[in-house]
Amino acid sequence: MFEAVELGRKASKSAYKKQEPEIRTQLLEVQGLLKEKNIPVIIIISGVEGAGKGEVVNRINEWLDTRDIQTHAFWDETDEELERPRFWRFWRKLPPRGNIGIMFGSWYTRPIIDRVFEKITDADLDTEMTRIVELEQMLIRDDALIVKFWFHLSKDSQAERLREDDKKFKRKKKHSLEKQFAAHYDAFAKVSEGAIRNTDTGKSPWYLIEATDRNYRDLTVGRTLIDAIRQRLRNGESNNSDSGITHRPLPPEEATATVTILDHVDLSQTLSAKEYKQQLEKYQNRLRQLTWNARLRKRSSVAVFEGWDAAGKGGAIRRITASIDARLYRTISVAAPTDEELAQHYLWRFWRHIPQAGYVTLYDRSWYGRVLVERVEGFANEQEWMRSYQEINDFEEQMYSHGTVINKFWIHLSKDEQLKRFKEREKVAWKQYKITDEDWRNREKWDDYKEAVNEMVTRTSMANARWHIIPGNDKKFARIEILKKLCQALEEALD
Amino acid sequence: MFEAVELGRKASKSAYKKQEPEIRTQLLEVQGLLKEKNIPVIIIISGVEGAGKGEVVNRINEWLDTRDIQTHAFWDETDEELERPRFWRFWRKLPPRGNIGIMFGSWYTRPIIDRVFEKITDADLDTEMTRIVELEQMLIRDDALIVKFWFHLSKDSQAERLREDDKKFKRKKKHSLEKQFAAHYDAFAKVSEGAIRNTDTGKSPWYLIEATDRNYRDLTVGRTLIDAIRQRLRNGESNNSDSGITHRPLPPEEATATVTILDHVDLSQTLSAKEYKQQLEKYQNRLRQLTWNARLRKRSSVAVFEGWDAAGKGGAIRRITASIDARLYRTISVAAPTDEELAQHYLWRFWRHIPQAGYVTLYDRSWYGRVLVERVEGFANEQEWMRSYQEINDFEEQMYSHGTVINKFWIHLSKDEQLKRFKEREKVAWKQYKITDEDWRNREKWDDYKEAVNEMVTRTSMANARWHIIPGNDKKFARIEILKKLCQALEEALD
Repeated sequence: MFEAVELGRKASKSAYKKQEPEIRTQLLEVQGLLKEKNIPVIIIISGVEGAGKGEVVNRINEWLDTRDIQTHAFWDETDEELERPRFWRFWRKLPPRGNIGIMFGSWYTRPIIDRVFEKITDADLDTEMTRIVELEQMLIRDDALIVKFWFHLSKDSQAERLREDDKKFKRKKKHSLEKQFAAHYDAFAKVSEGAIRNTDTGKSPWYLIEATDRNYRDLTVGRTLIDAIRQRLRNGESNNSDSGITHRPLPPEEATATVTILDHVDLSQTLSAKEYKQQLEKYQNRLRQLTWNARLRKRSSVAVFEGWDAAGKGGAIRRITASIDARLYRTISVAAPTDEELAQHYLWRFWRHIPQAGYVTLYDRSWYGRVLVERVEGFANEQEWMRSYQEINDFEEQMYSHGTVINKFWIHLSKDEQLKRFKEREKVAWKQYKITDEDWRNREKWDDYKEAVNEMVTRTSMANARWHIIPGNDKKFARIEILKKLCQALEEALD
Repeated sequence: MFEAVELGRKASKSAYKKQEPEIRTQLLEVQGLLKEKNIPVIIIISGVEGAGKGEVVNRINEWLDTRDIQTHAFWDETDEELERPRFWRFWRKLPPRGNIGIMFGSWYTRPIIDRVFEKITDADLDTEMTRIVELEQMLIRDDALIVKFWFHLSKDSQAERLREDDKKFKRKKKHSLEKQFAAHYDAFAKVSEGAIRNTDTGKSPWYLIEATDRNYRDLTVGRTLIDAIRQRLRNGESNNSDSGITHRPLPPEEATATVTILDHVDLSQTLSAKEYKQQLEKYQNRLRQLTWNARLRKRSSVAVFEGWDAAGKGGAIRRITASIDARLYRTISVAAPTDEELAQHYLWRFWRHIPQAGYVTLYDRSWYGRVLVERVEGFANEQEWMRSYQEINDFEEQMYSHGTVINKFWIHLSKDEQLKRFKEREKVAWKQYKITDEDWRNREKWDDYKEAVNEMVTRTSMANARWHIIPGNDKKFARIEILKKLCQALEEALD
C-alpha cells in the first residue's frame, strides 16, 4: 500500500505561493458553513514519525478561524484516563456540533504501537479496529465528518528527516530518534497497513499523503480538507449515503504532484537473448521444483495477471505453465461472466476457482476487472467499484489466512510500445485475432486507466498480497521478472 | 438476552389451523415476487440443540414452492472444503438471484462451537464475527435478503426435548444427547449471546424465537419471513436503506403468543416490616464492606435504575447510598440534556460521568431513555433508536472490558398499584411535587412502554450487563432485592 505514496510527489514553491491564498479563503468559507449547519468535524492526524504531523497541525490552525477549533494531542494517558475505559479520553475531547477537533494522535495510536511492540496479538488489534470502526460510524451517523490523514515517508526519507532533527536539537547518539525509529520502521509499516486497511470504510476513508515534500503535503491537505467538507455539506442532514465522499487525497494540479506509480517504472530495462535463455532455464527449473514442494506441503498459489492490452500477459503465463506439471495448475481466462455467474455476487465466479491445497491457479485478468475496466467503462457505478476494494481485500485476506500464496502482476508498457505492437498485430496474419476495435478504444482511455491502476495498487497492495509492477517494454525482461517474483514468493512461503 | 425468549409463549392448535393456510398463500405470493425481482434470499437456521431446526426447515420447504429453493446442511467439512478458505463452502451454496437458500447450520456454527470447546479465543471469535458481518453486508449490498433465525430453548425445555428424542431413538445412556448437550448449555448460551450481539446489524438482524411450543415457533417463522420479504421488496433495487427492516419476530396474534418479560414478574412477593428491617441492615452492611473492598481493588461499579413512574426508583437508590461512604459514590439524575450535551452525540453525556477506578455511579434513569421515552414519544426516529441498542451494547462492553461491574434494574409495578400511588401523591401535600401531568400521560402509553421494555431487555441484557427485573408492588421487597443483586454482583467480581 505504501509504495503508492513513495512516488516523490512534490509541489513547487511558486505553486504553493499561488495556491495558498485560495485554499485559505475556501477553508474559511466552508468552516463558516459547517458552523451554520451545526456539523462537527474530526480531523485525525496520523502517520510515521518525522512526517511533520506537528507542522500540519500548525498549518491547519493557521489557515482556519481558530475560535471554533480545538487541537488535542494524545500523549501518555493520565491517571484520570487510565482509570476509565480507553475511549473515555477521546469522548471528553470530541468537538461539539459546528466545531472542528484536530486529533494529533488518536484512537489509532496506541493499538498500533502496542502491536508493533508485541504487547497485543493480531486478533487483539482486529478487535480494537472493529471498535474504532463502530465508534466512527456512530459519530458519522450523528452528523459528524471524520477526515483521516496518514502521512507517510519512505524508510530513507524518514532517516533523513530524523537525522536533521537530531542535529537541530543536538541529540546525543544514545537518544537519536533516527536510530530508535529506524529499528521499527518495517514492523510499524506492516501493522499500520493492516490497521488502515481495516478502517478504510466508505464513510470514513483514509487519505494517505506522501510527506517528503512540505509544499505538496500541505497543499494536498488543504485541498483534500476543502473537498471532504464540501461533500459533507452536500450530503446534508441525512449523512447516510456512501456516495459523494472523496476517497482520494486531492493533490495540487502540477505535473510533479500528480505522478502515479506507473511513472516510476523504469521501462528501459532489457535482457539480451542469451541472458534470457539462460535465466529462463534457471527460473523455470526452480519454479518446477518449488511447485512440487508446495504440493507436498499443501500450500496453494494464486497468481493474477493484469496489464495494458498487448503488454504480454499471455506470453508470460505460457512461460510459467511450461515449467509447472500440468496436473498442478489451472489457467482461468476471465472474460464476460456467464448467465450463472451473473446471477451471483461478482466475486462468486472467483471463489469458484480457488485452488485446492497445493495447487496453482493463474488468472489471465481477474477480480480486478471491477476496479479497472468496469470502473473506466462505467459498467459498475462509483459506489460499487469503490466498495469493491474492501471486498477484494477481504477476499484475498481469507485466501492468505488459509495459507495461499498470492502474487499480483501489473505488466506496464509505454504508450508508444503499445502502438507498435498494435500495428504489428494488424500486419501479421496470425496475430490479427489478437487486436480488436476494443483495444483501440481502450487505448484512448489510457489516462483513466493509469489513474485506476494507481488507486488499485494503493488500496490493494498488502504485505501478503503485494502488487508487482513489471516493466514490459522488453518482453524477455518482463517474463524473467515474473518468474523470479513467483519463485521468491514461493521460497519465502515454504521457508 | 435469552431470558426474553423463555416466556412460555405458545399458540393454540386452532390458531395454527386457522393461520397456516393464510401464511402459505402469502408466502407463495411473495416468493413469486422475489423471483420476478431477481432477489436472492438466504435463510439461516440456527439455535440450540433440540429446538427443532430440522422441523422448521421441513416446514418452510412444505410451505414454499420448492423449485426455487435449495436447502443446504453444513455438517463436517469435506476434504474439498478443508483445502480451501473456510467460506468457500458457503460461496458454493449461495442461492442465485430469485432463489431461496436455506442454510441449516451456517457460517455461525463452527466459530461458536470452536469457542465453546475453547479451540479458539474470544478475540478469534470476534475476528470471525467481523468477517461474517462483512460477508453479509457484501451480499446485502448485492441485493440479497438475509433472514437469520435463532431458535432458543431454556435449559429445562432442552433437557426435556432431548430426553424425548433419546427415548424415541432408543439411545443408550452413553450416547444420550441430553447428557452431552446439558453439560455445555451455559457455555453455549454465553458464546452464542456474544455472537448474536456482534452480528445483529441494522441490515441483517437476528430473529430470536422461542422454540418450546411448535405451533408458536412455526407460525412466528412464517409471519416473520413474510414480513421480512415484504420489507425487502418495498426497499426495491437500492437495498441501501436501514429503514423499513423488521427487527423483531412477528408472533401470531394470540394472548399466549405475545406475553412479554414483564408478564412473568411475580408481583405478589412481599416482605414484612420485621423481615425488611433485618435484611436491610444485613445487606447495607455487606454493601458498605463490598464497596470499600472494590475501592481497594480499583473495581468500579455502575448501577442503572429504570422503571415505571412511581415504581420507587428514588427510594431504592436512597437505601443504597445510605450504605456507601459518601466519598465513594455519585448519583446522576438524568433529566433533559443541557445545551452543551445537546451539541454532542447522545452517549456523550453518559461517557462524561463514568466513574474512576474503584468508585460507584448510580444513574436515576440513564442512556436507556433513548429506547424507552425517546422511542415511545417519538423524540428519536425509528432508525435512531433501533441502532442505539448496538451503540449501548458497545458502550457497556467497553465498560465491562475495563473491569466495571454493571447492574441494570427495571422496577416493575402493576398498573393498579401505580394508580394507587399516583392518587396518594396527589393527596399528600409533600408528595405532590412528585406527580405531574406527564406521569398521567405516560400511563396512557403503558402498552407501548411494555413493548419497549421487552425489546430493551431482549437486546441489551448480556452476560456482563444483566437486566434485573424487580417486582416493585411491595417497596420493601424491591429494595432488598436490589441490595441483594448489587451485593451478589460485587461479590462475584471481587472473588
